[in-house]
This record gives sequence, C-alpha cells and structure tokens, in this order.
Amino acid sequence: MPLIVGVVGGGQLARMMIPAAVNLGIDIRVLAQNEGESADLAVSMLGDHRNVEDVLRFAQDVDVLTFDHEHVPQEVLAAVEAQGTAVHPRPSALLYAQDKLLMRERLGALGVPMPGWARIREAADLDAFLADNGGRAVVKTARGGYDGKGVRVVTDSAAIADWLALGDDLLAEELVEFRRELSQLVARRPSGQLEAWPVVESVQRDGVCAEVVAPAPRSAGKVAEVARGIAETIATGLDVTGVLAVELFETTDERLLVNELAMRPHNTGHWTQDGAVTSQFEQHLRAVLDLPLGSAAPSAPWSVMINVLGGPLEGSLTDRYPALLAAHPEVKVHTYGKAPRPGRKVGHVNVVGEDLDDLVYRARAAAAFLEG
Amino acid sequence: MPLIVGVVGGGQLARMMIPAAVNLGIDIRVLAQNEGESADLAVSMLGDHRNVEDVLRFAQDVDVLTFDHEHVPQEVLAAVEAQGTAVHPRPSALLYAQDKLLMRERLGALGVPMPGWARIREAADLDAFLADNGGRAVVKTARGGYDGKGVRVVTDSAAIADWLALGDDLLAEELVEFRRELSQLVARRPSGQLEAWPVVESVQRDGVCAEVVAPAPRSAGKVAEVARGIAETIATGLDVTGVLAVELFETTDERLLVNELAMRPHNTGHWTQDGAVTSQFEQHLRAVLDLPLGSAAPSAPWSVMINVLGGPLEGSLTDRYPALLAAHPEVKVHTYGKAPRPGRKVGHVNVVGEDLDDLVYRARAAAAFLEG
Repeated sequence: MPLIVGVVGGGQLARMMIPAAVNLGIDIRVLAQNEGESADLAVSMLGDHRNVEDVLRFAQDVDVLTFDHEHVPQEVLAAVEAQGTAVHPRPSALLYAQDKLLMRERLGALGVPMPGWARIREAADLDAFLADNGGRAVVKTARGGYDGKGVRVVTDSAAIADWLALGDDLLAEELVEFRRELSQLVARRPSGQLEAWPVVESVQRDGVCAEVVAPAPRSAGKVAEVARGIAETIATGLDVTGVLAVELFETTDERLLVNELAMRPHNTGHWTQDGAVTSQFEQHLRAVLDLPLGSAAPSAPWSVMINVLGGPLEGSLTDRYPALLAAHPEVKVHTYGKAPRPGRKVGHVNVVGEDLDDLVYRARAAAAFLEG
Repeated sequence: MPLIVGVVGGGQLARMMIPAAVNLGIDIRVLAQNEGESADLAVSMLGDHRNVEDVLRFAQDVDVLTFDHEHVPQEVLAAVEAQGTAVHPRPSALLYAQDKLLMRERLGALGVPMPGWARIREAADLDAFLADNGGRAVVKTARGGYDGKGVRVVTDSAAIADWLALGDDLLAEELVEFRRELSQLVARRPSGQLEAWPVVESVQRDGVCAEVVAPAPRSAGKVAEVARGIAETIATGLDVTGVLAVELFETTDERLLVNELAMRPHNTGHWTQDGAVTSQFEQHLRAVLDLPLGSAAPSAPWSVMINVLGGPLEGSLTDRYPALLAAHPEVKVHTYGKAPRPGRKVGHVNVVGEDLDDLVYRARAAAAFLEG
C-alpha cells in the first residue's frame, strides 16, 4: 500500500509537493477550494477548509493530513484528530503559527530572542508602547496576515482605529533596526529527528520575499550556529512537525531576533528544490509521514532564488519561455499555473553554482523575462 | 494558456515526466490503458494506444503528442498528424525505433559503426550468417522486443524455428566482444537544436539495465567525442525529436558500435534527475514542445543510478522506507507505484557526489534495502 498524504489547500506549496511525492512513490491528495488552483493535478476533492464535514471526509482516507496554509480552524483540526487521522503539524503546534500573540508569549517562555512586543487591547496600550519605543511600532493583527497583509508601521494609535474597532487583540512590536533578514528552515519528525538547512538571507520587497541567497553570505560561523539553535529551540519547544521556517532579523548590533514563524514549506526554502540534497517539499512529506529525514546539505556552493510576480504584460508566462529558456539554459524555472495578475506570486527561478555575483545577475535577468 | 503535452502510455517514463511538467508549469496528460498504472496521477483518459479513435480523441486537446513507449502503430500516428496535432518524435523517425531491421539499414546508410548484421527470412539465411561469424549470432525480432525480450543468442537455426514460423523477417547480429556497454543520450528540437549529456557506462544484468555510472569512467577524451558524434549523426540523420538514447558497445579492440536506439527518456538517463542541470524528462518535454533546451551539464562529478527490481519479499516498497531512509539520507529514492513482482523494474536510486567508489557502494546498499 502506498503512503497517502492529504494536503489541505491547493496553492503553490501543495503544487510543489507533487514532484517530491511522485519521486518517492507517495500518493498525494489535495483538498482545494476551487477548480484550477495551482495544485490542480493532485486535487482529489473540492471543499472548504473551514467546513468540518468537508475536511473530515477528505481526511478519512489519508495516512496523514498536512497543509498548504495555516488557515484551518482549530475545531476542524480537533475533529480530524478525534476521527483518528494523524495531523502534522499538530493543531497544538499550528496554533502558534495561527496566532501571533500566542506565538510571542510562547517564544518568550522559551527564552527565544525577539523584538520587544506588547498585547494591544485598546488605544492606550499602543500609546504606552509607542512612548517606550521611540514613537514608532509595527502593529499586526494576531491572525490572518501574510505577505505584508495585516501589518502596519504606525506612529499613533489613530492608525489602527479600524482594527481596534473589530475587537480582537493586536500585537505591537518594536521596529527593529536590522542589517538584513535571514531565514532558518528546519524539519522535524514526530519521533523527534531534526534536520536543518543552512541559514539563508532573504530580501523582502513591499513585505513580500523577493530574493533568497543560500547560504546567507558571511554566515559561516556564529550566525549560522545561533540561527540554527533558535530554530531547533522553537521546533522542539513547540513540538513542531514538518517544515518550520523561522524568519529572523539580523540587527545592526549583531543580534538575531525572531520575526515570523511558518509551519510548512516556505518561500525562503524554494532554493532547496535545486540547491539541496533534499528539498523542503520532500522533507516535509518525509517528516509528516514520520519517515527518516534526508540530508539537508546544499548540493552547490551557492543557490539564488528569485520570485516572479505577475506584471503588466499581456499573455501567459509560457509565452515568455522561448526567449527566457534560450537566454538562460542553466536556470531552473518554476511556475505555479496561475494567471499573472500584477503583484501576485506566480513563479520563481533558482540558479545554483560557484560564483555568487554571477548567479544573482543571471537569476535576476531570468526573473525579469518572466515578469515582462 | 499553459502548454499541454499528451503522453501515450502510463508507465514509469510518463510518471517521471510529471515532476518536470509541474515545475515548468506544463500541463501533462496521459493516455493509459488501465487504472492504477505508474503515471496514474496525470491520466486524463483510459484507452488503447493501438485504437485510432482513442488516440485521436486523446490527442485533440494537446499541443503535442509524445510517448512513454514505442508501440503506437504508424497508421494511428499518421491519423493524429492528419488531424493537425504535432507528434514528437515524428512517426517517420519513430519507425526506426519500432523496427530494428529498418534501423540497421538506415544506420548503415548513415555510415554509423554497428555490429555485423543480416536480414533473416529463412533458416538458410541464419546458417550463412553463422558460418561467417564463428558459429554464433544474436537474433532479434525486428519489432516488439525490450529489456532482453525478443533477443536470443543462438548457434543454430533450430533455435529460432518458432520465430521463423511466424513469418516476420528477423535480425541477426554479430555477437560483439565488448569490454563494456555505454549509452549516449541527446535531445533534439524540431528546429534542430541539440544537447548531449555525457556518455555513461551501463551494466546490464539478464538483458536489463542494472547500474549506470555518469559520466562513464575513463571516457574523458576520444570515447566521449566519438559517442557524442554517433548520437548526433543519428539524431540529425533520422530527424529525431525529443530524447534519443543510443546504446553502444565499447569493443575489446577500441571501437564503439551501436547496439540499440530508443526515442524517449531511457533507463540509462535516470541519473539526470539528480545529477544533471536538466533531467532527461524535463529536456524531453522542452524538446517536444520545441522550447529551447536546458543545460545538459552534470551537477556533480559523479552520479550512480541503480535499478530496483521486485524481489521475493512480501509487502510494499514503502514498508522498507524507514530502514532505507535512515541508513541513506543522501540517496535519492524513486519508486514507480508498481507492485514489486519479482524481476519487474519498480524503482531506482540515484546518488551523486565526488567519490565514485563510495557512491557505488552506497547506491548498491540502498537498492538492496528495496529489493529485500
């Protein structure tokens, strides 16, 4: 009998699990909301991830349920576990990826370095936080934000009056002076085995990951060790199973502070498809099935990943393949089967090799072909 | 609009095109004979590849029709082309992969080095060939053989009486004294662009490819150049589109002779999944879509591929994953979703790195776990 993994959500992360599943002989099935989503090829059922009956029905034939996104409600996940189907990451861990306030509290208890933060129930809470933090703060909704959505940099509480009016507690964070952003990915099995990829540098543009260099330049010594230690502490402390992404600020005063967490394959790990012995997608499947993890060693000295966003050009991405592929025979092109609406993540390119400057140049040139 | 490739045949070669198609954003659809075949995930229609109506219906919505195997009759292919759907490799080229007698005649006209051969219409023809060739010959059915089937080593014509009784002409070939077997894969686009992977060494067991080392050891100079030249001559001379595999004998007197041809991804190219910038499966898709080809450069100094055959053990291959994956975190495991009946190709392992002896050892150990 093949192993069966059920993935809730039909986006590009589910899509990119398909090649890994096919290679390893794993039966992958996807619960998508609509026809024509990125992971269409593996969709076995259409349904709503917030609907307990849909998710229970989808989960009943799988060996383990896992996720393309963090949006499945806790009560739905509890019902799946009560039905006897394994869920990884477990709902008790996923909670901390769903609620940023709970995450900050829990990381504080684990002693993980973080930006200063406060729970904001009313305007006065933010006023106090601003007074303590030089008059500026990052305010986030505790739930539902991604890719820069649900995040505001503010200097007064009037700027979040609309969010406060909704009645949910908010998270205020210190606006960190950082030199660069790093990301540390690890994978962890239910039985505890853990593997870490090298820490990477990520460049964000408008709150969206734009470029990743792996390993992070100038990270060979202490930085790599500290980043890995932080991610291992979190993975173990929160009992995370599957891939955990820990986004970090490297501050101008040489500290690493935890910015965000994700408990699934992550944009900053796409380079592993072509630059590591085991990709984050294969590793996630192995981890949630509690199979021994693969080597997370890089397979080349440097890897560069650049996201492709939908641009103003007419036509489909594949219209641009002849020129792109002719100019860049070494570039690995990944597209997600999405219409290239402006600003939408529709693909990425990976280039691996020995000369970092050259790789960055070529990856940017290739991505530019696709953005048009 | 995505590019759509239709693959006739639901075996492991079609299956292994799926990851490449998903990555490149190509819509892959498979015509399979039965449910539950290797390429099940991408099957869009069940039908018979010998039935013109089935194949025409399957082909009407695709941009190009290509193949998992060589068994689609010429009259069916002609009907698809008449319908206006591109077919690659073209029927006029595929013919030489379907009929070994036509292949020998055509390669002779191209001046390609081959074993001595003769067309056998009756017992007397073989008697004459045996008399000229030291009393031994390899006799092959012109059509339908693969993996050692349809091949006999004979010393008298009585040994092929049953084949002669069927009335089809047979092919007799010189039994070549060879030092080793090599395989040269190239890919060629309809517009003529051609890319060659390094020549590899393949070890056969019982007529089935067992192990491949890429590049072939001691092939850096003249051997690589000659092998590549032969494959380019054949690809161009026969107007092959897609991947062409040329299996070669390296003789004890230092010649390279063409043994067999295949016009599709080939077992001796599976190492490219983990050991080359562009895998044979991605390259085949690019070639048949007439997209620019990717780099065929190796991504590591050495790659070793070892086939996994079904063995006597009970249970499924995935039952053996925990022990296998724990012992070999660097090995890339590929299984085909087939029940492990004895002697059947059910998967392979790839290992890449710098120390060839170590890679061979580890690949054999990993494959042995799966064979049980």
